[in-house]
Amino acid sequence: MAMTVKQRIYLYDTTLRDGQQTPGIDFSVEDKLAVAKMLDEFGLDYVEGGYPGANPTDTAFFTGKRTKRAKFSAFGMTKRAGVSVSNDPGLAVLLQAEADTVCFVAKSWDYHVRVALGCSNEENLEAIAASVEAARDAGREALVDCEHFFDGFKANPDYALACARTAFEAGARWVVLCDTNGGTQPSEVRTIVEQVIACGIPGENLGIHAHDDTGQAVANSLAAVEAGVRQIQGTLNGIGERCGNADLITIIPTLMLKPAFADRFETGISAEALAGVSRLSRGFDELLNRAPEAQAPYVGASAFATKAGIHASALAKEPQTYEHVPPESVGNRRRVMVSDQGGRANFVTELKRRGIEIPKDGHKLDALIAVVKEREAEGYAYEGADASFELLARRMLHTVPDFFRVTSFRCMVERRFDANGVLKTISEAVVKVTIDGEEKMSVAEGRGPVNALDVALRKDLGKFQTEIGDLELADYKVRILNGGTEAVTRVLIESRDSTGARWSTVGVSDNIIDASFQALMDSIVYKLMKNREMAGLVAAE
Amino acid sequence: MAMTVKQRIYLYDTTLRDGQQTPGIDFSVEDKLAVAKMLDEFGLDYVEGGYPGANPTDTAFFTGKRTKRAKFSAFGMTKRAGVSVSNDPGLAVLLQAEADTVCFVAKSWDYHVRVALGCSNEENLEAIAASVEAARDAGREALVDCEHFFDGFKANPDYALACARTAFEAGARWVVLCDTNGGTQPSEVRTIVEQVIACGIPGENLGIHAHDDTGQAVANSLAAVEAGVRQIQGTLNGIGERCGNADLITIIPTLMLKPAFADRFETGISAEALAGVSRLSRGFDELLNRAPEAQAPYVGASAFATKAGIHASALAKEPQTYEHVPPESVGNRRRVMVSDQGGRANFVTELKRRGIEIPKDGHKLDALIAVVKEREAEGYAYEGADASFELLARRMLHTVPDFFRVTSFRCMVERRFDANGVLKTISEAVVKVTIDGEEKMSVAEGRGPVNALDVALRKDLGKFQTEIGDLELADYKVRILNGGTEAVTRVLIESRDSTGARWSTVGVSDNIIDASFQALMDSIVYKLMKNREMAGLVAAE
Repeated sequence: MAMTVKQRIYLYDTTLRDGQQTPGIDFSVEDKLAVAKMLDEFGLDYVEGGYPGANPTDTAFFTGKRTKRAKFSAFGMTKRAGVSVSNDPGLAVLLQAEADTVCFVAKSWDYHVRVALGCSNEENLEAIAASVEAARDAGREALVDCEHFFDGFKANPDYALACARTAFEAGARWVVLCDTNGGTQPSEVRTIVEQVIACGIPGENLGIHAHDDTGQAVANSLAAVEAGVRQIQGTLNGIGERCGNADLITIIPTLMLKPAFADRFETGISAEALAGVSRLSRGFDELLNRAPEAQAPYVGASAFATKAGIHASALAKEPQTYEHVPPESVGNRRRVMVSDQGGRANFVTELKRRGIEIPKDGHKLDALIAVVKEREAEGYAYEGADASFELLARRMLHTVPDFFRVTSFRCMVERRFDANGVLKTISEAVVKVTIDGEEKMSVAEGRGPVNALDVALRKDLGKFQTEIGDLELADYKVRILNGGTEAVTRVLIESRDSTGARWSTVGVSDNIIDASFQALMDSIVYKLMKNREMAGLVAAE
Repeated sequence: MAMTVKQRIYLYDTTLRDGQQTPGIDFSVEDKLAVAKMLDEFGLDYVEGGYPGANPTDTAFFTGKRTKRAKFSAFGMTKRAGVSVSNDPGLAVLLQAEADTVCFVAKSWDYHVRVALGCSNEENLEAIAASVEAARDAGREALVDCEHFFDGFKANPDYALACARTAFEAGARWVVLCDTNGGTQPSEVRTIVEQVIACGIPGENLGIHAHDDTGQAVANSLAAVEAGVRQIQGTLNGIGERCGNADLITIIPTLMLKPAFADRFETGISAEALAGVSRLSRGFDELLNRAPEAQAPYVGASAFATKAGIHASALAKEPQTYEHVPPESVGNRRRVMVSDQGGRANFVTELKRRGIEIPKDGHKLDALIAVVKEREAEGYAYEGADASFELLARRMLHTVPDFFRVTSFRCMVERRFDANGVLKTISEAVVKVTIDGEEKMSVAEGRGPVNALDVALRKDLGKFQTEIGDLELADYKVRILNGGTEAVTRVLIESRDSTGARWSTVGVSDNIIDASFQALMDSIVYKLMKNREMAGLVAAE
């Protein structure tokens, strides 16, 4: 059987430019450097770094080429009408930027030419051509983003095509058809792309830039590819203004793993890199300090999670009949959830996965399942708090030593004017701990009540002090359930130590300090328990 | 010009059944009653209430018909192989349920018939036919959800078609093609639907049930409609297991507002109801206590929000050249955001929208813009805290009376064993307030430190006491920025009073009590200021 020669799809990332328009997101130069590195290492073909000249951050970012493999692209506007190339300061900044590629955004809807630019249709075409030529003269590869292309085509197809053709004939490597308003439907994308190709621009020189305003940015991008386009523009995790841009994290696995595309196309991403796409997505969320989207395709924590007990047994046999792609191919894993719909089989699988032996006495397991269901109804999220779940399971199925006991604590936050008349807030915590019958009392101040409590709790744990010396809080999340101050507060804490180990614990209470305390306690006890387990000191039964 | 007769699309909601599979979601009977009412009033054609017999909640829910207009549908499995209709207890429960419609989930992939059901292909077909007949004999309309249909068709097209045809020929009103794994691509959906229609099942009797595992559940649903299908199954806000079901909140406005569909199809939803879709989506999130998705198509807070200063002025003239649908058509509004990319024009628009006059002294406005940008960099999210923004603007552009001053406060949380040896946590707050030179000191206990502080703060405000008597905290949200306990804490409070007015305030600090205090103070001062404004007592300048 003859091998089909696969067509190359080029991936153009605009996280640092169009993604910058996302409400609540603003990249610093340091952020941009970190993201450019992530994108470059992942294997994207183009990294659009920003809009030099538009603001100081972007201008600073383009003082050097920031990628090693990917083409580094600078975005900006076409030459202003009525002004020569050499007299357009914006264009000058753009061409001075340290970039391999320049991407010009051009009007392609005659209405916008008239109202936004205030020039004639012909002047706009001249500006497009002149800009592309100027970029090429400066040794740059040129792209033209035809703004509002699909709406412009619907309003005046001849003019939209003229803009695209002008860009191509002036020597643009790529003419990108942008669904700027995000309202175009996939069937319309297909029809219009076909007409662009029919008017003389090869698919190999066409790109698609979709927005998610009708929830179809991914579908529009793939429909354009099916119609002949060979470049896809998008962002990490689909960030972007309004409803976001096309999500490359969703598109890339689809192109590489679904036969409808993988049989015909190839990208510059290796299978190895693809197995790191979950890590890329989460790393980007961490940089933005955004909660990851649990239900995100391919990479979300829930993407391969199942509740129903019935699946768990069948799954084990032939997962491809229940899963559309193997989770490992995208660096994710199958999760069988501990939830109040979980069957016994699910639960046992989870315990085994954590290395907890199931006692022969079935009653202990029943009791544990009952407690978990009850606690989850109260708000404990054991799915995100592995260590708390393990502690609970070990306590109920086996035994966990007491180590130490907190007999009381007191947390105080006081805000008042100090001796100099400056308003200050002071947080102080006092903790009483009993170890081997001996009581210890510690006090500490902190940046807030929880920090004070954490420091006081770990200030003097006697013989355990050296073991917890390297314990650090990596993350602290608060969620109020049921709203108002009548709410139940759930605190999730992620801890780490000097070995790089990380573990999560949970606390639930209507009192945020109490909830934090539970999570802090679990974190310390878990570490002490693990230390002994590794030293073979904790008996299995 | 002859009017095209529009084809009717039927909308089948499975929020209460498939949506129940979402990680972290479990509806009580009360929840289901509330949601069924929302769906019924909105105008959906079918409401699938759950799976009677599978669990006590669903069985209880089906003791009565829960919709007035929509058909009320009960979901369950086809008859077990080797057992007669009258001897299948699951089937009996299903047929006894108070429902207009019964939806049977049937295997349509021969692999599943063998491995999951353990019966022959023929026995499965007999079970499908017998189930549909039994439902019709019981006076119910019958649907058959052909599970894993698209994967089943790819593996053994003849068998998948046989299952679908058997259901149709036995008298099912609808045969629903389910993309249970969520991995099917829109082009494959189109091709396969065409083959189903070609084998003898009319599009008017076909439905589509898509999942979002490749981010194309909406596109797959619409592609199926384009290929001839006339029922769409989905959920509110796209909830569902793994990556969720097809989002009806996205699909409905697309069907009704985008010409590609609106010119050919109609639904049972009125334009009036459509204008309430944002409220429906948010109401459902509130019921689930989920943070609404700001970037959700059509209904998200950011769906019609723009940052770029350039758009704001052009937008005012002809919004349809920048917006793909009018925001009002879906009950949303255009937001011009206060952000550090906001141009002066944006900012002035926002102030005017809030009824704040711009002083002739341009310096005050400059100073306000500078402070907003700085505070937003620190973490103040004025976008979600209208009242805090307005207070800041009024203080800097005009004046706001001092009303009262908090000279100090102290919050304490103590956990100890009480006289009976029971572990108790007590929260207490002491607040010192000065009004007209007179100092008042109040103490209060609360469920937690923030509740205690709130109660103490509002316990005795002298002459203002009656005015704030009806002030209530409606919602309290905490967000930790930058992680760890080194983090900055942002607290957003939503308050309301007896008139139904609601307003949001924000506080930022590395101390959660301090952040809460700022937000609480703003809430009280805002109410006092608004009372005077309405009484004409606050001067414009």
